[in-house]
Amino acid sequence: MALSPLFEKLTEALRTLPGVGPKGAQRMALHLLERDRVGGERIVSALAEALEHIGYCQRCRNLTEHECCAQCSDPRRDDRLLCIVESPADLLAIEEAGGYRGRYFVLHGHLSPLDGIGPDQIGLEQLEQQIVQGSFSEIVLATNPTVEGEATAHYISELLTPYGVNCSRLAYGMPLGGELEYVDGGTLARAFTGRLPYSSQ
Amino acid sequence: MALSPLFEKLTEALRTLPGVGPKGAQRMALHLLERDRVGGERIVSALAEALEHIGYCQRCRNLTEHECCAQCSDPRRDDRLLCIVESPADLLAIEEAGGYRGRYFVLHGHLSPLDGIGPDQIGLEQLEQQIVQGSFSEIVLATNPTVEGEATAHYISELLTPYGVNCSRLAYGMPLGGELEYVDGGTLARAFTGRLPYSSQ
Repeated sequence: MALSPLFEKLTEALRTLPGVGPKGAQRMALHLLERDRVGGERIVSALAEALEHIGYCQRCRNLTEHECCAQCSDPRRDDRLLCIVESPADLLAIEEAGGYRGRYFVLHGHLSPLDGIGPDQIGLEQLEQQIVQGSFSEIVLATNPTVEGEATAHYISELLTPYGVNCSRLAYGMPLGGELEYVDGGTLARAFTGRLPYSSQ
Repeated sequence: MALSPLFEKLTEALRTLPGVGPKGAQRMALHLLERDRVGGERIVSALAEALEHIGYCQRCRNLTEHECCAQCSDPRRDDRLLCIVESPADLLAIEEAGGYRGRYFVLHGHLSPLDGIGPDQIGLEQLEQQIVQGSFSEIVLATNPTVEGEATAHYISELLTPYGVNCSRLAYGMPLGGELEYVDGGTLARAFTGRLPYSSQ
């Protein structure tokens, strides 16, 4: 059921957004057409502009409309640290958490041979180039703690062995503020085996 | 925290959508830029087209890109019934529920003097014209069962008295499949005072 062909086309298009179903798309379409046409125009121009200009950073494959992204072109960042993440969303999460002030490299995915995603698709050649050209003392493998993320981290650490850089991996364990009772078994077992000497500082 | 100025502009624009917060907008922007640029282009063109062409139906003020909407131009609909709704979303809900095959009139709001919304803003002059030109035997006042919706229904019924048409209002009571225990007091009291003789058919 739709008001008109153009309205249907709009709701169909809005359904491609993540987390938006038929009812949500209809609500969005009606909101834009009835109450916020200016907002609608703003989405049209911002999205068209972003799709046209935003591409990959030439150094780290982060999303940017410039040749180099903000993290790569910031002279105050530590050139000896490189953090490898699966997606720009992970990069944003680390930036928001604060504390890390080194460089990044964005894979845009993880190794997944069954889906045809090999080393070329996640830019590992470009990563090797960066390692050769740069002077990194540590590479933080911050891929997700999933089977594919682990496999990708392992593959990259093997790949980088000849270059003699230290690779590290994010710590696993209990999330801060989490309750033991509700943490999944795998995480709890890992936190147990990875227990550290207690220090009150 | 944003990847780049254009990316920030895009997330800001997406936040005007109903039910979309900062995290959701970021997720949408990353999805469109990383995984579904074709879907993004489709949103741009569908939204631009809809904003340019979709306006009000000349008869019933429903949203449409044509002179008359689908409901007004359908010759199989009953010309003696007119249903007055607050918004196109209400019209869609009634159409989806099925059963009603008359005409519609869309107010695009309700009377709300404090917000400067009077009879002119909800198209009551145009409604009167429709009543004069048409041959309606019944007007269904399907505004929302809220204070403003009730006031609007009351105002319209007074307005239409001189034209000698019958006005009706949607029935109030228990929602089908609802449980007495969880129905709000107002609805339950109304269902009680409006009780009907029991018939097993």
